[in-house]
Amino acid sequence: MSGGAGHEARDQRLAEAVVGGMLADDAFSRWLGVEVAALAPRSATLRMTVRDDMLNGFGVCHGGVTFSLADSALAFASNTHGRVTMSVENAIGYPAPARAGDVLTAHAVEESANGPLAFYRVDVARADGTAIAHFRGTVYRTRREHAAAAGMLTTGDEGNG
Amino acid sequence: MSGGAGHEARDQRLAEAVVGGMLADDAFSRWLGVEVAALAPRSATLRMTVRDDMLNGFGVCHGGVTFSLADSALAFASNTHGRVTMSVENAIGYPAPARAGDVLTAHAVEESANGPLAFYRVDVARADGTAIAHFRGTVYRTRREHAAAAGMLTTGDEGNG
Amino acid sequence: MSGGAGHEARDQRLAEAVVGGMLADDAFSRWLGVEVAALAPRSATLRMTVRDDMLNGFGVCHGGVTFSLADSALAFASNTHGRVTMSVENAIGYPAPARAGDVLTAHAVEESANGPLAFYRVDVARADGTAIAHFRGTVYRTRREHAAAAGMLTTGDEGNG
Amino acid sequence: MSGGAGHEARDQRLAEAVVGGMLADDAFSRWLGVEVAALAPRSATLRMTVRDDMLNGFGVCHGGVTFSLADSALAFASNTHGRVTMSVENAIGYPAPARAGDVLTAHAVEESANGPLAFYRVDVARADGTAIAHFRGTVYRTRREHAAAAGMLTTGDEGNG
Repeated sequence: MSGGAGHEARDQRLAEAVVGGMLADDAFSRWLGVEVAALAPRSATLRMTVRDDMLNGFGVCHGGVTFSLADSALAFASNTHGRVTMSVENAIGYPAPARAGDVLTAHAVEESANGPLAFYRVDVARADGTAIAHFRGTVYRTRREHAAAAGMLTTGDEGNG
Repeated sequence: MSGGAGHEARDQRLAEAVVGGMLADDAFSRWLGVEVAALAPRSATLRMTVRDDMLNGFGVCHGGVTFSLADSALAFASNTHGRVTMSVENAIGYPAPARAGDVLTAHAVEESANGPLAFYRVDVARADGTAIAHFRGTVYRTRREHAAAAGMLTTGDEGNG
Repeated sequence: MSGGAGHEARDQRLAEAVVGGMLADDAFSRWLGVEVAALAPRSATLRMTVRDDMLNGFGVCHGGVTFSLADSALAFASNTHGRVTMSVENAIGYPAPARAGDVLTAHAVEESANGPLAFYRVDVARADGTAIAHFRGTVYRTRREHAAAAGMLTTGDEGNG
Repeated sequence: MSGGAGHEARDQRLAEAVVGGMLADDAFSRWLGVEVAALAPRSATLRMTVRDDMLNGFGVCHGGVTFSLADSALAFASNTHGRVTMSVENAIGYPAPARAGDVLTAHAVEESANGPLAFYRVDVARADGTAIAHFRGTVYRTRREHAAAAGMLTTGDEGNG
């Protein structure tokens, strides 16, 4: 098909516009200090540093903070196509704790999609590669367009037809 | 059995001592603003108010914040017996969003236990009773004693024999 | 409101017609030997007996058999309203093993619903009440009508409007 | 270290002995018709063909059958090290249905381990590569030795020290 490269460039611009808009308004992700390390259609990599005010009563990173990082990565990855997409059900397993000062990277990628539903996995690791969390997210794609996607979507992007 | 009431009072004191110690050191739960609304052996109810800095890019409570509240309730409930207990695997489903100003209550209760492993459910609801999240937690009980439990544990409290 | 009792009777007939039709065509649930012990709108209780050909290499009931019983209970409960409804994501925890000869009961009930998505829990127990499995199911309700529901549905039953 | 190749050969023999013993006694996996397509330490690939008696009331493969295939792959992979290992918590998402005649492959691999606990993922796909299920398993490794592992284990294989 002609136009493949044009579509790829458009999809990448759309992903960046949507995630830029989401992050600007996302107070809690800003509190977490997340930075977008990489972004592509249906994929996002975030990075943050564990701070003292993110620790739990055992002196390690609160499981909810690790989950939140993964959840933000899921939200960004799963909205890159420009339709408002929401978490339905998420699960997380914790192979190892994170500590203050650790730089955590969360890499979210779509595993498969089925109509309005899609399945993502997010792996969270320390800088040395140690796995900190295995996260799985199921999301539901609505028909609503992101404001940042205005004019960039075509009929083929409909999630729920 | 003689001593039942004595055991119950001791178990309640143990639960309160452990959770008091955990919460004092739990910087992130304090950031969340969680309060202990009720506490009993193997059960905990927490309450918090959703603030503007807890919202995501859609203007609703970040899923990670709701998860964190439930996770703290799980941590408190599952450590009440005085042995250090950690989350292994948690799952959350989101039937409805929470908004700024909403008062959320998370009620954690043990469903069953099997040796060092135990299964908890946590329900998160708004003040009007609307379900906000269904959370399930699987935990692993170590043999380590909480400092706050020193001298209050007997052999029968061993999780992992 | 007038008509409440009439609606309840209609909803019960609808649930029975749909589940009767599903079970008649469900070869694997018949292999499992499941019986419907109770049925109501958005709820179902199934019963089966663990047989020798359901055991795994450890001589206990295969986790997949226990899951299947719970999954059938979920499928029946979540289709009672007459629209074709499918599992999206299920999770199961195993507090105790089941053995040959055990009579297992799975009780499925809707926890909450949000548009086309709904959340169910299913508890599986032995006859003596011991918890065998905690199961959670997230389902997606399509707009397709069950054949058995023909003429019994009204606009208000639409899941995905 | 000297002996690396010897250890690898021993680990492979151990995996084969354990899984051979498990499968010989696993009545339900035999009913499913599972074959071991590949086996390595902490990994297993199973294959089976969907039969008419595995269908549900919608005429597609019962979710419990797909789960069972994945669960058997998990059980085999997670026991390859010779200690009796059991599922604690499993989750499955269903991106697409399987139909009668489909040949399904389930590939189980360890993602990470933490003391007696380990995390596995299992991907189930059709012969054409279409994803049928995403499965995640959390397992608990006991200290009990498999009979088939007698004399093949060393101190370093202890899961729960």
